[in-house]
Amino acid sequence: MLDEIRLLYLLDLFGVSVFAISGALAAGRKSLDLLGVVIIAVVTAIGGGTTRDLLLDRHPIFWIADPTYLSVIIVSALATIWYTRHKAPPEKALLLADALGLAVFTITGAQITQEVISNGVIIVIMAAITGTVGGLIRDVLSNDIPMIMRRDIYATAALAGATVYLLLQFTGLSSVTNIIIGMGVVIGLRLAAIQWELHLPRFRLEE
Amino acid sequence: MLDEIRLLYLLDLFGVSVFAISGALAAGRKSLDLLGVVIIAVVTAIGGGTTRDLLLDRHPIFWIADPTYLSVIIVSALATIWYTRHKAPPEKALLLADALGLAVFTITGAQITQEVISNGVIIVIMAAITGTVGGLIRDVLSNDIPMIMRRDIYATAALAGATVYLLLQFTGLSSVTNIIIGMGVVIGLRLAAIQWELHLPRFRLEE
Amino acid sequence: MLDEIRLLYLLDLFGVSVFAISGALAAGRKSLDLLGVVIIAVVTAIGGGTTRDLLLDRHPIFWIADPTYLSVIIVSALATIWYTRHKAPPEKALLLADALGLAVFTITGAQITQEVISNGVIIVIMAAITGTVGGLIRDVLSNDIPMIMRRDIYATAALAGATVYLLLQFTGLSSVTNIIIGMGVVIGLRLAAIQWELHLPRFRLEE
Repeated sequence: MLDEIRLLYLLDLFGVSVFAISGALAAGRKSLDLLGVVIIAVVTAIGGGTTRDLLLDRHPIFWIADPTYLSVIIVSALATIWYTRHKAPPEKALLLADALGLAVFTITGAQITQEVISNGVIIVIMAAITGTVGGLIRDVLSNDIPMIMRRDIYATAALAGATVYLLLQFTGLSSVTNIIIGMGVVIGLRLAAIQWELHLPRFRLEE
Repeated sequence: MLDEIRLLYLLDLFGVSVFAISGALAAGRKSLDLLGVVIIAVVTAIGGGTTRDLLLDRHPIFWIADPTYLSVIIVSALATIWYTRHKAPPEKALLLADALGLAVFTITGAQITQEVISNGVIIVIMAAITGTVGGLIRDVLSNDIPMIMRRDIYATAALAGATVYLLLQFTGLSSVTNIIIGMGVVIGLRLAAIQWELHLPRFRLEE
Repeated sequence: MLDEIRLLYLLDLFGVSVFAISGALAAGRKSLDLLGVVIIAVVTAIGGGTTRDLLLDRHPIFWIADPTYLSVIIVSALATIWYTRHKAPPEKALLLADALGLAVFTITGAQITQEVISNGVIIVIMAAITGTVGGLIRDVLSNDIPMIMRRDIYATAALAGATVYLLLQFTGLSSVTNIIIGMGVVIGLRLAAIQWELHLPRFRLEE
């Protein structure tokens, strides 16, 4: 049990780091100043978990309870700025890291919600909120149409992964196995969607 | 009393359904994918009540306490997508339904706030928040200037209906009568504004 | 002690008034109707403190606990509309007032957070949130890229002022002195930035 908690905590720190990097890169494309970059990085990294905690009335909010998150985010954003002054960001590695971040946040979101809620639909929705809302706020602040609504199989991957993770709990598998398979579903769907340009059908209204 | 509560609950379910449809149609105009449509529909339908519950520290949030709301929203959004594949959306019926949804949310918002707050100004504001914030978030996510700030006599109708509903409580009328009159004020103002293109004066600054 | 509290309360009312005016002027540039102007003014003035109270689980939210805030905001917004029908807004006075509003909200935000949290980094962040989030929501609703991420030395001034205010508490100075110096740092940095067009370095990614 301790190992599972430690594993999730380390993964969670990895997740905020990855999302901070993606936020810093998005801010760089908008040519913000240094503090603006850090702000966008922070919001991207903590937006999902903060929304989840507010909706669940779970206080103190995770990053207030454990400021390690903020340190990791700020260091990640500054390192991104420093790195990209000299080299182009490694786009492929970032897509992989982003998929891993989405997977981590989705499964930790499901876990945390399960501590207080038993309804499966709510757990899956909170998992998807944890995984996707940070990126959504990043896009709103950057004045873009949120990627979550354009980028194909993104929220879908979170919903599918969280659903599989919940269903696995009715099997006899260990919780670490469930975590790994649930995250695998999220990552697999995201990477498959990127590789083969999978997407859900669009809904287009004639005006 | 039971009848009043059951009436308000059924009206509330009707309200989330109508707002889910309006969200799905807005998403269709932006050509989002199926899940994006459902997300916008959900946010439009629950945004107002969720904001109210967070501001009032009223937990669990209404749709976490009763997932029936989510089912109604998702079915409404999918039915909208299916219907509009074959036929144009019935614009007039929708404007009427939207006015009814606004009226329902405004009065239920006032009622719920009254359970915990006695200040009349706060109750009227929470009623208007319940009625209008879902549409506001829909517009922000769709990257439009929020309709609430352009569409004439929208928040105004909510504020007026909630004020009338509160004032009626000082008369000897039954609470069902108060609900009907309060909703009538909202619907009447909205439809009159649409019919005769009423609007508040604009405030325009020369630059 | 009473004097310190009364001073902060009066400054806080001054702060919401100034931010309501800045919100009303921003709304005027978008040519919204009268209620839209008031809504933007309210959101600009209470957005920061409301976000702080939600994140800290501090209920009732400050403007629910004390509706005086709403009265001051609405009167300020209406007075702005009335004044600007006849005269151009006094831009210089407004920049000064905005700097003072930012300073007030930053220091009161730090104080309020200190009542419940001891971690210095969290206090500084909450202070900056209190000072800047109202303007950020104003810009998102007006469909602009938030000024906080463009306008130079804005959030920076809040972070610096809050940090100085916290550090001063380790000296033997009176708390009124600490408040004045902390606010002075915010105002001084903002005015210096405006006067000499200071700004943090930008981070620009080549695409």
